[in-house]
Amino acid sequence: MAQLRRYHPVDSTVVPRVCGMRTFMRLPHVKTTEDVDFAVVGIPCDVGSTFRTGSRFGPAAIREMSMLLRAGNAHLGVNIFEHVSGVDYGDINVNPCSIEDAHRAIEEGLQPIVDAGVIPVCLGGDHSITLPELRAVAKKYGPVALVHFDAHLDTSDVQHGSRLTHGTPFARAVEEGLIDATRSIQLGIRGIFSIESIKKSEDLGFEVITARQMRKMGLGAVAKRVKERVGDLPAFLTFDVDFLDPAYAPGTGTIEVGGFTSYEALDLLGELWEMHFVGCDVVEVLPALDPTQITAYVAGNIAHQFISMLALRRKGERGET
Amino acid sequence: MAQLRRYHPVDSTVVPRVCGMRTFMRLPHVKTTEDVDFAVVGIPCDVGSTFRTGSRFGPAAIREMSMLLRAGNAHLGVNIFEHVSGVDYGDINVNPCSIEDAHRAIEEGLQPIVDAGVIPVCLGGDHSITLPELRAVAKKYGPVALVHFDAHLDTSDVQHGSRLTHGTPFARAVEEGLIDATRSIQLGIRGIFSIESIKKSEDLGFEVITARQMRKMGLGAVAKRVKERVGDLPAFLTFDVDFLDPAYAPGTGTIEVGGFTSYEALDLLGELWEMHFVGCDVVEVLPALDPTQITAYVAGNIAHQFISMLALRRKGERGET
Amino acid sequence: MAQLRRYHPVDSTVVPRVCGMRTFMRLPHVKTTEDVDFAVVGIPCDVGSTFRTGSRFGPAAIREMSMLLRAGNAHLGVNIFEHVSGVDYGDINVNPCSIEDAHRAIEEGLQPIVDAGVIPVCLGGDHSITLPELRAVAKKYGPVALVHFDAHLDTSDVQHGSRLTHGTPFARAVEEGLIDATRSIQLGIRGIFSIESIKKSEDLGFEVITARQMRKMGLGAVAKRVKERVGDLPAFLTFDVDFLDPAYAPGTGTIEVGGFTSYEALDLLGELWEMHFVGCDVVEVLPALDPTQITAYVAGNIAHQFISMLALRRKGERGET
Amino acid sequence: MAQLRRYHPVDSTVVPRVCGMRTFMRLPHVKTTEDVDFAVVGIPCDVGSTFRTGSRFGPAAIREMSMLLRAGNAHLGVNIFEHVSGVDYGDINVNPCSIEDAHRAIEEGLQPIVDAGVIPVCLGGDHSITLPELRAVAKKYGPVALVHFDAHLDTSDVQHGSRLTHGTPFARAVEEGLIDATRSIQLGIRGIFSIESIKKSEDLGFEVITARQMRKMGLGAVAKRVKERVGDLPAFLTFDVDFLDPAYAPGTGTIEVGGFTSYEALDLLGELWEMHFVGCDVVEVLPALDPTQITAYVAGNIAHQFISMLALRRKGERGET
Amino acid sequence: MAQLRRYHPVDSTVVPRVCGMRTFMRLPHVKTTEDVDFAVVGIPCDVGSTFRTGSRFGPAAIREMSMLLRAGNAHLGVNIFEHVSGVDYGDINVNPCSIEDAHRAIEEGLQPIVDAGVIPVCLGGDHSITLPELRAVAKKYGPVALVHFDAHLDTSDVQHGSRLTHGTPFARAVEEGLIDATRSIQLGIRGIFSIESIKKSEDLGFEVITARQMRKMGLGAVAKRVKERVGDLPAFLTFDVDFLDPAYAPGTGTIEVGGFTSYEALDLLGELWEMHFVGCDVVEVLPALDPTQITAYVAGNIAHQFISMLALRRKGERGET
Amino acid sequence: MAQLRRYHPVDSTVVPRVCGMRTFMRLPHVKTTEDVDFAVVGIPCDVGSTFRTGSRFGPAAIREMSMLLRAGNAHLGVNIFEHVSGVDYGDINVNPCSIEDAHRAIEEGLQPIVDAGVIPVCLGGDHSITLPELRAVAKKYGPVALVHFDAHLDTSDVQHGSRLTHGTPFARAVEEGLIDATRSIQLGIRGIFSIESIKKSEDLGFEVITARQMRKMGLGAVAKRVKERVGDLPAFLTFDVDFLDPAYAPGTGTIEVGGFTSYEALDLLGELWEMHFVGCDVVEVLPALDPTQITAYVAGNIAHQFISMLALRRKGERGET
Repeated sequence: MAQLRRYHPVDSTVVPRVCGMRTFMRLPHVKTTEDVDFAVVGIPCDVGSTFRTGSRFGPAAIREMSMLLRAGNAHLGVNIFEHVSGVDYGDINVNPCSIEDAHRAIEEGLQPIVDAGVIPVCLGGDHSITLPELRAVAKKYGPVALVHFDAHLDTSDVQHGSRLTHGTPFARAVEEGLIDATRSIQLGIRGIFSIESIKKSEDLGFEVITARQMRKMGLGAVAKRVKERVGDLPAFLTFDVDFLDPAYAPGTGTIEVGGFTSYEALDLLGELWEMHFVGCDVVEVLPALDPTQITAYVAGNIAHQFISMLALRRKGERGET
Repeated sequence: MAQLRRYHPVDSTVVPRVCGMRTFMRLPHVKTTEDVDFAVVGIPCDVGSTFRTGSRFGPAAIREMSMLLRAGNAHLGVNIFEHVSGVDYGDINVNPCSIEDAHRAIEEGLQPIVDAGVIPVCLGGDHSITLPELRAVAKKYGPVALVHFDAHLDTSDVQHGSRLTHGTPFARAVEEGLIDATRSIQLGIRGIFSIESIKKSEDLGFEVITARQMRKMGLGAVAKRVKERVGDLPAFLTFDVDFLDPAYAPGTGTIEVGGFTSYEALDLLGELWEMHFVGCDVVEVLPALDPTQITAYVAGNIAHQFISMLALRRKGERGET
Repeated sequence: MAQLRRYHPVDSTVVPRVCGMRTFMRLPHVKTTEDVDFAVVGIPCDVGSTFRTGSRFGPAAIREMSMLLRAGNAHLGVNIFEHVSGVDYGDINVNPCSIEDAHRAIEEGLQPIVDAGVIPVCLGGDHSITLPELRAVAKKYGPVALVHFDAHLDTSDVQHGSRLTHGTPFARAVEEGLIDATRSIQLGIRGIFSIESIKKSEDLGFEVITARQMRKMGLGAVAKRVKERVGDLPAFLTFDVDFLDPAYAPGTGTIEVGGFTSYEALDLLGELWEMHFVGCDVVEVLPALDPTQITAYVAGNIAHQFISMLALRRKGERGET
Repeated sequence: MAQLRRYHPVDSTVVPRVCGMRTFMRLPHVKTTEDVDFAVVGIPCDVGSTFRTGSRFGPAAIREMSMLLRAGNAHLGVNIFEHVSGVDYGDINVNPCSIEDAHRAIEEGLQPIVDAGVIPVCLGGDHSITLPELRAVAKKYGPVALVHFDAHLDTSDVQHGSRLTHGTPFARAVEEGLIDATRSIQLGIRGIFSIESIKKSEDLGFEVITARQMRKMGLGAVAKRVKERVGDLPAFLTFDVDFLDPAYAPGTGTIEVGGFTSYEALDLLGELWEMHFVGCDVVEVLPALDPTQITAYVAGNIAHQFISMLALRRKGERGET
Repeated sequence: MAQLRRYHPVDSTVVPRVCGMRTFMRLPHVKTTEDVDFAVVGIPCDVGSTFRTGSRFGPAAIREMSMLLRAGNAHLGVNIFEHVSGVDYGDINVNPCSIEDAHRAIEEGLQPIVDAGVIPVCLGGDHSITLPELRAVAKKYGPVALVHFDAHLDTSDVQHGSRLTHGTPFARAVEEGLIDATRSIQLGIRGIFSIESIKKSEDLGFEVITARQMRKMGLGAVAKRVKERVGDLPAFLTFDVDFLDPAYAPGTGTIEVGGFTSYEALDLLGELWEMHFVGCDVVEVLPALDPTQITAYVAGNIAHQFISMLALRRKGERGET
Repeated sequence: MAQLRRYHPVDSTVVPRVCGMRTFMRLPHVKTTEDVDFAVVGIPCDVGSTFRTGSRFGPAAIREMSMLLRAGNAHLGVNIFEHVSGVDYGDINVNPCSIEDAHRAIEEGLQPIVDAGVIPVCLGGDHSITLPELRAVAKKYGPVALVHFDAHLDTSDVQHGSRLTHGTPFARAVEEGLIDATRSIQLGIRGIFSIESIKKSEDLGFEVITARQMRKMGLGAVAKRVKERVGDLPAFLTFDVDFLDPAYAPGTGTIEVGGFTSYEALDLLGELWEMHFVGCDVVEVLPALDPTQITAYVAGNIAHQFISMLALRRKGERGET
């Protein structure tokens, strides 16, 4: 293997996997932005959940299973840490009693990372956390393109009288000018209260492709469409694990059947490697409903694919494995 | 959203999902057939099970998870309760000590629903319950076409000396003239004691398409074949969750690998929306083997798709979502 | 069996247990206070949880397992429904996004029950719900005596900047004059941040008996002490299931080892039957951490013991079984 | 260790525990009564269950965990197989569709064992199986004394119209003259539909000691009472695992809180070692509700204690360990 | 059904599935090679595991679920036991403290089976066991072709200083001349420490097809390639259940997302029925991480498909079901 | 609260529990012995396990649940970190393929801690790890007294040909002169292969008190006996969680019924606070068999009680809470 970058995982052939504190991918736990390309950040916040709760334990569960993640990516043909350096930056200290406080802490916690040009890779937590993440990102990059994998639109205006829940972040993000909805896209949608919901999301500017439409188009065409839509705008990837079918990700709050496989998700993501992503999150992992830990693991794999895409872009070409 | 029909789910934006008694889809629990298009009926009977038991707890588990079901159907492009009205009719009181008594109660319990022209949507329970359901249905409509999704044929003559088990209902249904086997079809078959079993089912008049044949034909061709076979005969849909692969429905008594995905099942069903269904059931959900509750949820989704199909037929056209 | 009171459970020898909607003890689900001695009320609220969440699903889980509860109480020697009439009043609709709203709904929802002289038997939910319960109760009875079973004191002033969490209800209750702390008692305490915490609770007026002190005194002496302390003041029983050892109640948010057995809890409670209880709750059941459902069941049994105590008091004497 | 009897477990120091077919305690699986003192018999029958089902998988689960059982008994101070010889006789083939057929097979299957003077140690299965066991036993010994550990009386006359369920075996056994109720005793009772139930059991001739009475008397006094009651009459031990508290045995169909610990059960049993037992069963293990397998294991330990008691009686004295 | 061969499963219509010792497919447990075409052998060895352990309980779990396997194979259109005879040969006694001892016992235990021309069907256990299996096989047949289904290459030279782990068996097998790597193929690879790993495997002589390459080629083309590569060389099939996606096989030590479905695995295998297989194993089933038992079941199905392929080859043609 | 010592847990009222890396009790993760009274060390080694494996994941599981542990100890009446300073020292890197290598790493890893006079609090791992721990301890203190809580003696000479397993550490420790058996004591014994086993342990010099003897003596007398036996010799506490009953600690490899409660264990330990302990471990936590995490939590509580005892000894007197 070629020279490794500054921050990279412990070598599992030297230190057995089971040993050591549970950082993401066994990366060093250092709160720095120097010599760092990406920083993994845990955001154990679920005060935005309106139904099945517990995603505050998501970051720890993802880290536990991420011991199994490897520095090589056979799908994309890249050795990640020959091209990028990354750290586990730790958790944002989020108030479990106040979503406003929690969101403020998330934004403030991420700002130094974003400002340093480091790519944040956030582990949720419920989907409301994407809002303060986008606030931090937009402060540096201006309105970004949102590439949104989810079974749900999350563009409700209000839920139970609250404008801040895991069902409303993207309505807020448009209002606050954090994202350019006309360059954004929502993929995998299938759980809707009424068919007008999709219209409302489109009225906000989003392009919506439902799960069924994706299957009719074929995933290759979907990837092409995403790239056309976003172009070279700085983009933020947000991945709700309920994009996947419950068979692949049972441990999440609002499962929806008729979803995608892990291969489909990784393959579709992989097609987007040349895009200009400035941050990502993986959200809604709920460990108490994940007895086999496969949800935590697939969530870690999504982050791993994203990091591999960064490496590939840095490397400049895709391997042939 | 347009005007809602008389009986429809509680609005989850008003009453949070977690609140209230667990009725199917949060429909009103009213034992009526007035102003009702469909009635959901729990049939907590598993005295017909010969192997892994416990599907008597299926209806409660399906109802619990059905809190997540929504009034909009993105796959079929329809807002269900603009077109149909439905209730949770409650459970049939089934004797856990006698299959004969239980079957009698099921038939008698369903008869008023069927006679009123209301579509019963039954939640099982083991597959033996389809027999008394068909008795009630045939009394009104005469022999119906059976559209049967299952890994198994369930056309045994006798099991362990008993002619009434979850392996024999369709042998009995043919004998009793409840179904017209020559217009009926069995889909997804893969668990057989010998290859002659399929021949025996065909000898009863059924058309059998195995799981492998379905994959070879393609699911679009299968849907076409079902519609040709049944034509405009009143039809009864019976869906054993073991039609699905164990990855999608682990919580059932006789899992068979090599099954279908939840998307495939919903998509195939959706293609049949114009057919003249007069009743349906979803059977063999076994909650004790379903720690992540995904089986109960996918079973609820099958019923939800069926109800959506009724709505679509009433509406007269399929949406484009 | 003698004549039953107006509202009583379905007879399980007529309707098998597995059949029917899951009401508490299979009582009728009627929202009335007429001819009713006690009303079971679900309070699916966990917005006050600061650590492991999910007790919003507690009421449904307790109801599901309460199918196993019986109308006879061998421990106390009483046939409950010969002496009292009760209903399952349903759930309070609690806002999952706002603890203030949720608390308001709880208080308002309980007030008609309390005002009618009906005893509320509340199923939580996190321990913050006891505060609005006490508000409703105190409006009718004035400051009541609190009989508090718990591993924790729950008399913190503020947690994470919030004065309303599941760790603060009794600080608030004292401030608001809802309880007479000098007549109140806290039993089973063993999880403390520092030994000064107990002093603070005592400074509020409470008598505190730790788990270890209870074992040193003997449970008979504890019962005697509770009765002396409270006297004939109207009393409210609040039972956090973490009073029990995790072996007996694993499904709760803040388990503490060194707790009590189910027999000890029932026996100690039973000794208090002659006291003047005007309400009770059982809180902090967390189904996602309760794979064997024993926590939900023991919680139901605590409510059952309380109801039996009401029956015994009405009857006027304890049986000899 | 002294000379071992003819049939004894595989030596775990030679063959690692994990290897080999799962027989009880790793005894040889031989269907013989020659040179055999006791025969372990699996009875995978649960057609008598009226509520939570699945105890038909009990024998396999008990055998799986019985790998952990050892040939030495520290509690009773005896090396079992220096004094007795035993086999795993396999399962009785029980019809899952007919309780009458199943009961007939059980009786016929056990008769050769009983007739040969071999002690049957039966693993259930639901509690209805004790009836045919007693039929086989009474045919040889005449009416026996029943020593019955249970949370429930199981002396109902009829359940749901059936006289053969897991709630009725001892009503039938008295009627058929299989047991001498005036020499029989029911221990641990706490789950009753009404307090009259106990009276009915007493009317049949039984002595009933409730869980609470046992605690008031002390377990030493209970043991004394059992020995006085039974005297030297041939006795049959039937142990329903719900005698134990759900904390100790969660995996059973009708858990009742306020039960006994595993130590209490073993210690009480051990006090009875000098009695003349001619058979026993351990029933109502339900593996699907036993994720940690502790119920299956404690059930195996009850059988192990019973076998140790046989060994001790054969040896003639109790050790001092 | 035509005449059955000498050793075949118990007829489930005569002996209910739940009854009897848990042998594979309910085959007779006989340690013989006479009149036997295949012998199922449990190898409860996991001392080669470097991460999540417990596959030593794999054989028992596979046997338990194999009760559900049937003598007919609808996918391949064959009644297995009309063409082949087979036994459950029991477990190899493997030392849990020494991999060298364990491997010696495996080789010696299998040799009589292999030498008699009987096909061993081995149930693991971790993947290190394939090494001694190949030693036994190569002693009779010389170097064989390895057809290897896995997410991982398992061709490491050394792990943690040890040359014998579940990550090294095929490096050893090549060194020892047990397999002809130039006729061998590795399928489904996706978990790699670096992209050079694949090169190293190729340097040993293997052809490697990654999961992504398989999807790009199509599974039909993959089957064709396997047959071309191996030709008529005696071949050994080794199937690590992590070839499957974690949704289909969560209960294994090193899950890798992006894997295959159960249908894909069975279908691809089925295409190879005419090949000259002389043995197989299914490895890395880890029951403690398999709460729904679907991993144990799918592993049993792989063995069942392999046995069906033997039957089909013996029969000489594939059915049309 | 008085002044805290240098290293102490994060304040949970400032940083919510769910946030941050999972160190023991939220102590700082610093590999130092300066200003440190005790160091918590994870030893993820289970190569010594002969039956149910997986305790290598014990340290991580104990840390995860140790978030719930608090700085105050109500049982002993002490605020721990007013008297002692401690760190989470991290894990020893243990070879999963070689028990000899693993043991060497453990000894070498602990030596600097022990030599600095810091008390190691080790989290296992299987019971074989106590041997290298004792090697490190004895190098500084000479032969120590062993205070051994366990269901098993662990003084076998050889298991499956190996002298190093989790069943042999104390035979080795005596041979190597690491412990003074005549000052050592084994408590809670109940799982024995034969009654001679106890004699063998006594022959090595140990005093053995079985579970039954402990109950006959009373736990107060047991504590007194331990103190008499050990006197003021430096002592090492080793606590196998199977000392507890499976109801309290299901997640361990060789459960034994008839064990102790968590209160009994804590209370008995607490009585020993004045003894001169120089190290301790808690071993055999097996997370895969611990779905409710109560085993991991009670194990953490044992370590917490031990640390509290150190604090109490430092403080010089026991509180009265």
